[in-house]
Amino acid sequence: MSTMIPDTGNTPQKDNSTATAARPNKGGLEGIVAATTAISKVDGTAGRLIYRGYDIHDLARTCTYEEVAHLLWFGHLPTQKELSDLHTKFVAERNLPDLVVQTIRELPKTAEPMDVLRTAVSAWGAISVSGKPTIEQAIAATARFPLILATFHRLRQGKEPLESRSELGHAANYLYLLTGELPKEEHVRGLNTYLVLLADHGMNASTFTARIVASTESDIASALVAALGALKGPLHGGAPSKVQDMLHEIGSVEKAEAWIREAITHGGRLMGFGHRVYKTTDPRAEELREMARVADPEDFKLSSYVETKALALLDEMKPGRKLYTNVEYYSAALMKAVGLSGDLFTPTFAVSRCAGWTAHILEQVNNNRLIRPEAEYTGPQNESFVPLAERK
Amino acid sequence: MSTMIPDTGNTPQKDNSTATAARPNKGGLEGIVAATTAISKVDGTAGRLIYRGYDIHDLARTCTYEEVAHLLWFGHLPTQKELSDLHTKFVAERNLPDLVVQTIRELPKTAEPMDVLRTAVSAWGAISVSGKPTIEQAIAATARFPLILATFHRLRQGKEPLESRSELGHAANYLYLLTGELPKEEHVRGLNTYLVLLADHGMNASTFTARIVASTESDIASALVAALGALKGPLHGGAPSKVQDMLHEIGSVEKAEAWIREAITHGGRLMGFGHRVYKTTDPRAEELREMARVADPEDFKLSSYVETKALALLDEMKPGRKLYTNVEYYSAALMKAVGLSGDLFTPTFAVSRCAGWTAHILEQVNNNRLIRPEAEYTGPQNESFVPLAERK
Repeated sequence: MSTMIPDTGNTPQKDNSTATAARPNKGGLEGIVAATTAISKVDGTAGRLIYRGYDIHDLARTCTYEEVAHLLWFGHLPTQKELSDLHTKFVAERNLPDLVVQTIRELPKTAEPMDVLRTAVSAWGAISVSGKPTIEQAIAATARFPLILATFHRLRQGKEPLESRSELGHAANYLYLLTGELPKEEHVRGLNTYLVLLADHGMNASTFTARIVASTESDIASALVAALGALKGPLHGGAPSKVQDMLHEIGSVEKAEAWIREAITHGGRLMGFGHRVYKTTDPRAEELREMARVADPEDFKLSSYVETKALALLDEMKPGRKLYTNVEYYSAALMKAVGLSGDLFTPTFAVSRCAGWTAHILEQVNNNRLIRPEAEYTGPQNESFVPLAERK
Repeated sequence: MSTMIPDTGNTPQKDNSTATAARPNKGGLEGIVAATTAISKVDGTAGRLIYRGYDIHDLARTCTYEEVAHLLWFGHLPTQKELSDLHTKFVAERNLPDLVVQTIRELPKTAEPMDVLRTAVSAWGAISVSGKPTIEQAIAATARFPLILATFHRLRQGKEPLESRSELGHAANYLYLLTGELPKEEHVRGLNTYLVLLADHGMNASTFTARIVASTESDIASALVAALGALKGPLHGGAPSKVQDMLHEIGSVEKAEAWIREAITHGGRLMGFGHRVYKTTDPRAEELREMARVADPEDFKLSSYVETKALALLDEMKPGRKLYTNVEYYSAALMKAVGLSGDLFTPTFAVSRCAGWTAHILEQVNNNRLIRPEAEYTGPQNESFVPLAERK
């Protein structure tokens, strides 16, 4: 998410419809409880995020992604036996049907990886998925997301896809499949932490989308494809690479202050600042900052300097407007540090969020009611019909 | 939508989560205004549906699908010149990129047409769609949905896809592409009326899904793919063929009363009855009944008899429980009458609804705010973290 400064709150009331009316409350369902969930809780005022009751800081510093996926799906952290079983299941699902590989091969090398992932998951659904969503399907989907992306990434580089390595965990295997090299320990640790931190986040737009689709009694692939479409949008998951673009544009510590002053003065975009829900520091940003520092200390200097300087200048020039770096800010630095190209940032967000989406889909179908809201109609009520021949 | 009798209202409170709490109001966002729209209004109490102020009865009896698409997109019914221009644009878009055809060819013949449509639209998006949704993209998508389905349908029958015929309108061209024959006038009229009636319906689950995806500033293909996933669910768009299954099971007028009594007594499913929003006759059902009667008078007899008998028996056995046939009931009869196989019923619903979805996507992006609701968290709040090695 980026913040346009000055922030006008709602977007302008530009409307091509034949009538306009006041929008109910703030619009966008802000503050409206759309569902109950026992999976995660975002406390934006306290700056706290919990998965199934566990503080995100504890999980980020200690757990593998697989442990957290187990927690989200089953409601408790796994024992060593349960974790080993889950790893075995993941490994067994680390393969793509030929049709899915073929679908990926035929897409142009210039395609956006999010579009490739969406299309490949849809093709997988067409041949492998039906019926009420199951935990087995959740594991299969989560195991396959990295394979789809790595297959496409290798092919677009003119290389052949690689076989997964069963001894590697989720984060390490993903990096291996992308690069063909056994990844450095600090890269695995950094990416794993990222995957843990982004795995769930309350009723965000993509998760909500997935739940609506699941609420119609559609299948898990349909729900995931819908969630991927939502995550693709820059207002949700689609902007992290723009943080890197901004830092690249700023160029150096010396030029940062002038650039930021100009942005704040003339309504430019400060990428990676602000969040609709968090009114204080995003707890995920704190963890990501530390991971980014470890993964690439040199690159971290500019990111860190820009953060500090921007917050100070915002405080000076826009007092009362509390802004903090959001999860995207150091996600970008971290993902770059572990070797991911910019167009893989959002798809890697999807690799992480797949556990959360599928946990929500399973929660939805286990206590389902069709999600079908109402709309306030603002158009004309009683137009007199005129047949085609008489219309002018 | 089907109705389980007796209807228990909400689904049972079965919950695998670690804690439970009262659900807010009725759940499923029932009665919650999620957005404003000037496109269509469903008045469930009065049994009235309007598109841009025009009563659905006027539109259904007089307009082509193209006229109604123009109405939904541009806010007014077209003049002859505007309609002619729109037809020209539709005709120009009646082609599928080679990659999309290839994607369809590779899917197994046994795939569900909804999955094929979802995958093909996603592939189309990957190669042809980017940026903020436009009216040109809306027209292109609406023109292509029938082509995708007909291409798959021909291929699964071992036949080659056909070229569109520029002199044919949307309904007639779709039937021609499916069958290879110029369709009968009453079939074109019946299908056209169906396409008009189903083209939009307020903030239903698929339209809401499309708007959420669009609200993230994702692209139109992502939003349509998401909507298709939602429409696939039997609680939304996925059950019309089951009405035919039910009528087939009933078999004859003579056996109808006993079958219905048994269903009502023992909680069986009466397919095609009941709707969350309509508390009286669905105005679309009235129009479809007439079209079904004209399209296949013989088949209509059983459908009509079962409707009358079921309503009478419900009144006798479940007094106070007002139920009416919904849009699916005669949709099924009508679609069968015009020659569509059961697994094309829901995809043909999508062919119709594409105009409404795209109109809503355009309305959303022209006055956008991210749709991001909140959730009521019902899980544990403060679990003490135990490291993996110490878990039992």
